[in-house]
Amino acid sequence: MKDIALASSERIDDLLTHGLHIIQSEEVFSFSLDAILLARFCSMPPRGKVLDLCTGNGVVPLLLTTRTKAAEIWGVEIQERLADMAVRNVQLNELEGRLHMIHGDLRTIHLSLGHGQFDLITVNPPYLPVPAGEQNINEHVAAARHEIHCTLEEVISAGAKQTRAGGKFAMVHRPARLVDILTLMRKYRLEPKRIRFVHARAHEEAMMVLVEGAKDGKSELRTLPPFIVYNDQDQYCKELMEIYYGGQISSKEGSSP
Amino acid sequence: MKDIALASSERIDDLLTHGLHIIQSEEVFSFSLDAILLARFCSMPPRGKVLDLCTGNGVVPLLLTTRTKAAEIWGVEIQERLADMAVRNVQLNELEGRLHMIHGDLRTIHLSLGHGQFDLITVNPPYLPVPAGEQNINEHVAAARHEIHCTLEEVISAGAKQTRAGGKFAMVHRPARLVDILTLMRKYRLEPKRIRFVHARAHEEAMMVLVEGAKDGKSELRTLPPFIVYNDQDQYCKELMEIYYGGQISSKEGSSP
Repeated sequence: MKDIALASSERIDDLLTHGLHIIQSEEVFSFSLDAILLARFCSMPPRGKVLDLCTGNGVVPLLLTTRTKAAEIWGVEIQERLADMAVRNVQLNELEGRLHMIHGDLRTIHLSLGHGQFDLITVNPPYLPVPAGEQNINEHVAAARHEIHCTLEEVISAGAKQTRAGGKFAMVHRPARLVDILTLMRKYRLEPKRIRFVHARAHEEAMMVLVEGAKDGKSELRTLPPFIVYNDQDQYCKELMEIYYGGQISSKEGSSP
Repeated sequence: MKDIALASSERIDDLLTHGLHIIQSEEVFSFSLDAILLARFCSMPPRGKVLDLCTGNGVVPLLLTTRTKAAEIWGVEIQERLADMAVRNVQLNELEGRLHMIHGDLRTIHLSLGHGQFDLITVNPPYLPVPAGEQNINEHVAAARHEIHCTLEEVISAGAKQTRAGGKFAMVHRPARLVDILTLMRKYRLEPKRIRFVHARAHEEAMMVLVEGAKDGKSELRTLPPFIVYNDQDQYCKELMEIYYGGQISSKEGSSP
């Protein structure tokens, strides 16, 4: 781990896998289970190019490095302060040769990165519609949570532009938006192929959905086993314990959480 | 249970709830878990009118009678032999006052039943596309399994015609078709509101999906807890034991399986 200058609100957290560490700040954005499950769910290409949209402090690209030795990974973030953290996270983990963090807008990033260049796109976008009125929270947190800089349709449309034929697009989102997600993915020719629902407990409604599509893929969706976060004893399930403490993010290429 | 004349291949089975019995035939079609879960999943109106499309031998309407005392229930079946069994199933259970079985085509049934008359539509449609070539199986089984008499779009479009404003449309289908189902339901203004996946075992992919939409409903989908058929000891789960042996199809109006 390299010495990196931290801003006053920042701290370095242990990602608990492969010796990775991450600069975070409560003031801006902290990574969560969403990012961890997305990084494990997506079909990682053994080589080629991966792009993470709405990358924030770069947590998904950092985690993806544990699943590949050969793929090159890009991250794009529109908020300057977060993009700067992402760049320093690459330095902190000495991953400059494999990770590239860009401060930019996903709606226009194809102008610099080109069309159809990526084997996999990942995205953990803001979940909530722009609030009417009461958005008097921290602007960075608001941008990470609400569709301020981009709508769901803009995220999916941008992903479609970047994905090569047959390439994958993987997203984590709220199940309440599932119909929008699936119809928009089909509209932009990212045919949904794998889906997995995340439930806090076995008897509770889903709190999160992971979905992956293939560019111009055949219409046939697989619904994976449910991911149940807590078991009956209110402890993390075995699968999550393995992710957190077993360094198992990377166990199988293309495997699913 | 009334005395009813049976054809040579027919037998009477116990529906294991509320003393209901059903005429079935291996040659034609036997009800399955699909029908039982659909009858339990749908939001049953306390009164009003319910219509079951692709009703087969009428199993879903029979089961729905256990969830209401006041609603009137119709069933429509295109195959004459099955429609005749459905009529005799009503007589067998002496439910003539509440159940009405019609031999007809769901694509034109609005001409006799009218538009927008129903509070709830249920349907357990044929799942498989029309096979190319090798459909040398029994014609009745083929029609129940394959989209021979109607496509998924025709089923959903027919359901939309029959549902009153705010009324519900509940379907059981294969998860492989989920994107088609959700996009078509939205296209025909039956906005998906509740969804539940059925897995044989907790670590297996979903084998069935239950979905319910509301006519002109607001876009917000709830993903219910997964329905896991077999527990870790390979026995039916508690929820299914209650349905089969506890007479619990009807326990709560509008409750979900």
